[in-house]
Amino acid sequence: MTKTLLILPGDGIGPEVMAEVRKVIDWFNARGQDFEVSEDLVGGCAYDKHGTPLHDDTMARAQEVDAVLLGAVGGPKYDALDFSVKPERGLLRLRKEMDLYANLRPAQCFDALADFSSLKKDVVAGLDIMIIRELTSGVYFGEPRGIINEGNERVGINTQRYTESEIERVARSGFEMARKRSNKLCSMEKANVMESGVLWREVVQKIGDTAYPDVELSHMYADAGAMQLTRWPKQFDVIVTDNLFGDLLSDLAAMLTGSLGMLPSASLGAPMANGRPKALYEPVHGSAPDIAGQGKANPIACILSFAMALRYSFDMGAEADRLEAAINTVLAQGLRTADLIGEEGRAPVSTSEMGDAIVAALDA
Amino acid sequence: MTKTLLILPGDGIGPEVMAEVRKVIDWFNARGQDFEVSEDLVGGCAYDKHGTPLHDDTMARAQEVDAVLLGAVGGPKYDALDFSVKPERGLLRLRKEMDLYANLRPAQCFDALADFSSLKKDVVAGLDIMIIRELTSGVYFGEPRGIINEGNERVGINTQRYTESEIERVARSGFEMARKRSNKLCSMEKANVMESGVLWREVVQKIGDTAYPDVELSHMYADAGAMQLTRWPKQFDVIVTDNLFGDLLSDLAAMLTGSLGMLPSASLGAPMANGRPKALYEPVHGSAPDIAGQGKANPIACILSFAMALRYSFDMGAEADRLEAAINTVLAQGLRTADLIGEEGRAPVSTSEMGDAIVAALDA
Ligand SMILES: CC(C)[C@H](C(=O)O)[C@@H](O)C(=O)O
Ligand SMILES: CC(C)[C@H](C(=O)O)[C@@H](O)C(=O)O
Repeated sequence: MTKTLLILPGDGIGPEVMAEVRKVIDWFNARGQDFEVSEDLVGGCAYDKHGTPLHDDTMARAQEVDAVLLGAVGGPKYDALDFSVKPERGLLRLRKEMDLYANLRPAQCFDALADFSSLKKDVVAGLDIMIIRELTSGVYFGEPRGIINEGNERVGINTQRYTESEIERVARSGFEMARKRSNKLCSMEKANVMESGVLWREVVQKIGDTAYPDVELSHMYADAGAMQLTRWPKQFDVIVTDNLFGDLLSDLAAMLTGSLGMLPSASLGAPMANGRPKALYEPVHGSAPDIAGQGKANPIACILSFAMALRYSFDMGAEADRLEAAINTVLAQGLRTADLIGEEGRAPVSTSEMGDAIVAALDA
Repeated sequence: MTKTLLILPGDGIGPEVMAEVRKVIDWFNARGQDFEVSEDLVGGCAYDKHGTPLHDDTMARAQEVDAVLLGAVGGPKYDALDFSVKPERGLLRLRKEMDLYANLRPAQCFDALADFSSLKKDVVAGLDIMIIRELTSGVYFGEPRGIINEGNERVGINTQRYTESEIERVARSGFEMARKRSNKLCSMEKANVMESGVLWREVVQKIGDTAYPDVELSHMYADAGAMQLTRWPKQFDVIVTDNLFGDLLSDLAAMLTGSLGMLPSASLGAPMANGRPKALYEPVHGSAPDIAGQGKANPIACILSFAMALRYSFDMGAEADRLEAAINTVLAQGLRTADLIGEEGRAPVSTSEMGDAIVAALDA
């Protein structure tokens, strides 16, 4: 079975970091794998060419491939664009139309980089948590939405909406992940303030009681969750939460690790006819327009996103391990892109030097 | 002009910490001030007595006094209560009906306690930021809301709604606060995803351009805000944000300081006939049912909330300074409640010993 990939480098540092992923893919293909790669536009660059951040043809191709790899979208050049054509709308359309309801966001602290965290070393060393964020519903997509006129002023409106089945399927993703890890799941919402949170808590509890009685389930208000993640993140293993809380909490968790340029993500939907899930992989970092085009970007988050693709789309756990080991090797050798240089003032390697080193380490 | 106070100790440690505030009020009254204090129920204890977390009579009294002092609400005993009578509803009704739209949440790191933070000392030492959270609108209060039946499943719904005038008045609070501090304001929303955020950003920018051109205004997405607060919080001075983002971000900021038991808040509305603003003051910490009734609670957050009342309701800045100085004195003397005891294993003082010491320091 061939493995089809659609690469959407996007804006800012997206193309640079994705070029390094291509080297990794080439390495695998030179050794007997058959990744079939096509490339297209998303975000600001798609807007520049087509007047839309995601062309319908690109959307259609994304639906057909086994996995989409996305770099990053957005930049100050597009800040003044109308809401409906902002670069982010391209990404959001992909998530929605591919129905990628489970966003897996690991927050892992790399030993070699624990010093980069703003948190004390003992608080973050060895940290390894997995946030499962609901990605296709909630306030990101609920209707009605918009800016309307009412009396003599405007009103901005968004709607948080969760159906039982939307909550159930992402809860199941959370419980399944917990089973693969330490059998512990914490669900976060604001059930003390929001009825959508009341329903969320109830459904997660019911799925836990009926289908996953072996998993230790707890609930936490999202504001307390933000506090507890900051105070002692190692109390958590798998967290499941909604789209908007997940946006803030997973970014917070990522920043705790000090390894922002290192963190990948996977967005998964239902299985396709070939058994593989609909899937999109992207680094957690943004398009970083301030350093774009300078060879300063760290390609590791994007390469680790490809490792997640190996694991979750292609059932190639051994190859994913190998790729992750290669990354650990180059870090242990002391190679650092500019974002990972601390006070010691070592000279940084460029984006492509880092990619080359990782490919070389794959051979070892 | 007499100064009327309604004290609502609430649940858990609320009554204990409020008892220490009473000592401080008595101290001021013994020295010629005329605080007129009445007391009533809110939260779980009000539900126990009246079947509602806030009796209409209490609501009416809150509307008449100069300032409400609230301890904390909630506890596991009330977890199974229906949403509509949960302890939190009492607090939310006060906020809404008194129209307390500006929630001032200082996040300050006390020198003596910087070691308690999970963050590195240089990241948090001297930290002093002020978050202004909109408190009477947004997803906390928007309609429609509830859990409805649709097809053969239930749907949880909440509505984020912001009118231009709601945004404008809290933005003005933010700008005014910035002028009193370092003339720098950062506004946070998700304008890349939510139309209510687009309107928020636009209105804040317009007020800035037209009425506060001297204040340096910036905008940040709330997820990036969570990251940046974690990475380097000292980049911020005054932050203005909506109700829900403010809930998470202000708790996060509070936890950064390591001084959760030390942090007060003020919730302010429009001026009343006597010129004083509608106002409610409460500590940031919760009802801490696990330690309630044991004399372990730290009363400082609640006493500092009274200091905020002196400053914002009664224009008694000198007296507020004096009270804050007394607190610094006892901390410098080494007095610590149990929550502030680190590894050194010093013996903690009780809630009332801490209150007594602060009152004694007021005399000095
Ligand atoms: C780019 C933006 C639309 C997106 C989001 O808000 O979901 C990003 O912050 C993320 O977390 O993937
Ligand atoms: C108790 C709860 C209703 C409240 C809120 O969500 O606003 C609390 O978390 C706060 O921040 O004051």
